[in-house]
Amino acid sequence: MLPIEQSFTVKFQYKTYFTQGIFIPENSLFRDVIAADGNEGRRKILVVIDSGVVETNPLLISQIRQYAHQHQEILDLRGEILVVQGGEAVKNDEIGVQKILQAVNDDAICRHSYVVAIGGGAVLDMVGFAAAIAHRGVRHIRIPTTVLAQNDSGVGVKNSINTFGKKNFTGTFKPPQAVINDADFLLTLSVRDWRSGISEAIKVALIKDKTFFDQIVADVPLLNARDRLTMDRLIYRCAEMHIRHIAGADPFEMGSSRPLDFGHWSAHKLEQLTHHQIRHGEAVAIGIALDTTYSFFMDLITENECTQVINLLKNLGFDLYHPALSAKENDEYLIIRGLQEFREHLGGKLTIMLLEKIGKGVEANQIDKSIMIKSIESLALV
Amino acid sequence: MLPIEQSFTVKFQYKTYFTQGIFIPENSLFRDVIAADGNEGRRKILVVIDSGVVETNPLLISQIRQYAHQHQEILDLRGEILVVQGGEAVKNDEIGVQKILQAVNDDAICRHSYVVAIGGGAVLDMVGFAAAIAHRGVRHIRIPTTVLAQNDSGVGVKNSINTFGKKNFTGTFKPPQAVINDADFLLTLSVRDWRSGISEAIKVALIKDKTFFDQIVADVPLLNARDRLTMDRLIYRCAEMHIRHIAGADPFEMGSSRPLDFGHWSAHKLEQLTHHQIRHGEAVAIGIALDTTYSFFMDLITENECTQVINLLKNLGFDLYHPALSAKENDEYLIIRGLQEFREHLGGKLTIMLLEKIGKGVEANQIDKSIMIKSIESLALV
Repeated sequence: MLPIEQSFTVKFQYKTYFTQGIFIPENSLFRDVIAADGNEGRRKILVVIDSGVVETNPLLISQIRQYAHQHQEILDLRGEILVVQGGEAVKNDEIGVQKILQAVNDDAICRHSYVVAIGGGAVLDMVGFAAAIAHRGVRHIRIPTTVLAQNDSGVGVKNSINTFGKKNFTGTFKPPQAVINDADFLLTLSVRDWRSGISEAIKVALIKDKTFFDQIVADVPLLNARDRLTMDRLIYRCAEMHIRHIAGADPFEMGSSRPLDFGHWSAHKLEQLTHHQIRHGEAVAIGIALDTTYSFFMDLITENECTQVINLLKNLGFDLYHPALSAKENDEYLIIRGLQEFREHLGGKLTIMLLEKIGKGVEANQIDKSIMIKSIESLALV
Repeated sequence: MLPIEQSFTVKFQYKTYFTQGIFIPENSLFRDVIAADGNEGRRKILVVIDSGVVETNPLLISQIRQYAHQHQEILDLRGEILVVQGGEAVKNDEIGVQKILQAVNDDAICRHSYVVAIGGGAVLDMVGFAAAIAHRGVRHIRIPTTVLAQNDSGVGVKNSINTFGKKNFTGTFKPPQAVINDADFLLTLSVRDWRSGISEAIKVALIKDKTFFDQIVADVPLLNARDRLTMDRLIYRCAEMHIRHIAGADPFEMGSSRPLDFGHWSAHKLEQLTHHQIRHGEAVAIGIALDTTYSFFMDLITENECTQVINLLKNLGFDLYHPALSAKENDEYLIIRGLQEFREHLGGKLTIMLLEKIGKGVEANQIDKSIMIKSIESLALV
């Protein structure tokens, strides 16, 4: 009996919208996005919010209730609005996921209903995972509230929680129904959350677009002065580059290459070693500095290029060294284990993005550990 | 700022192979399937087996070890071969999934390594779910061992566990890397497992292919005599129809229609109400009888057509009634709640497949409860 061959393609489409005041009465975007889904009648909506966002936006919950009431012909806001702990800790156990699944069951959320997540990248990752596995995937709208979530993690197709102490060990690839970036949330961010997401823009500029890199360098004073329009531009360009990249390459990462993870092998490990005391974007800034320095020591880029990158990160206020980088066990640098864990997570052969020049990445399939350690030690002196 | 539109397609391909003696030394199929994956070197393999299969095939574990040793240039069999409880119970909590995730971590299984599941549909569902969420999806090979898993559930793209007492509440759509049907496993099946999977073939024949239906009617004596070649033919045709259907329609079920779930709304509820004392295929046989009878009472099919279906199921030895069908709470038939739960799981409007004639299904968006109850009561008298 001949093998039976299965072959099909699935088309995925979603839009990332940009707005301000998403839940003020005059803004119909959220309602319109849901009304355009091809279904009829009221759509059940389960809303989950990051506790950090509720703290800095104390009126948000009542605004959402009023907004849903105003648009009740479309929006059927179910049960309680759930508030979950903000920050990476929410990904470190299954409690958050169980809470969402329970609410999906209690509120009779179906595959044509919505789970809406409002928050930073960690909350979006966790809620997105729960939404992806409930009924094999209910509709999911992401409303990212941090720079990092608006320009990078929130606009992509991945979700996850951390298991066995390993970042993103458990998760799926599942495009959202829509992403809505509300610039007003940026105004309430702490200095750290305002800054940390900029590292992902620097990352994508470094591997793909020198013009964008030069723009960020020129924008440093305005970014440091928290100029909203400058940040809006940075977020838009960065989100656009991430979205284009995902569509053009290997959206569900079936191969071994992951160019957008420049600087990320050490960042993930550093987050783990510091028990997430440093934010993802802060760890990525260190990871970029490390792999840029390594690229210079490997004669891939010039000293001048390396200095430009280091100075940009420093001028934005990023720390480029953390003692956990030098933590050892049996004379072995713990951070170096991140290379193996990164390979295991992605699978296949080790593939690490380095820099060939500013604006162009180059993949390496092996890393010289002694030169990487030299790079770590040189960062300690920056 | 204009919305950024994301749009991409992902191609999914896998083959369903048919073999005998998959792990005997002369059979290179399993090795060849893995060797053809485009990677190099030894591939890490984690094997998970249904306890029922180990009981009836006591040499299987040592055969697999020898086979892996014989092909060690390709196969790197990791750690212990895991044995998990067979039957639906394995889907009723998270213990099985946690066990697989733990082994994926312990054995350093990556996205280019393999989790191989050998067993009935429930074990394949559970292991498939764990494989789909570990590292956002590791490669997964299914080796179904029952008629039902070989001709239906094992060849598709879904996986799941049961949560909140609801069948398949938690899961994903994730095509396997390959499916390998080994006909030798059929020889060790109990009478119930041999028979119960035939109901899925009757289901797909009823909604799509009268010729296949007539063939099954003609094959009843040989099927009841456990003729392997007759069963091989039935499985091949049924698997082929399921595989073609998945590719042609809506593989990840983004719409509200699910034609292959003819007879399934009540089957899922009946499994829950009987605490899985009846097998999925047995419940489907009852579900087919019920929706066929309802189709007759609704004047969609003739009495003669209805009788043909009922007789085929009876002649194969299926029970067409279970007391749980008539179980009530506050004068309400509990089974009827299955309609609402089925709608909730799939989402959108209620869409139930009925019969227009033998070989052709027709979708209904509402069900007359009193006529459905009359159908239930008439089954009690068959």
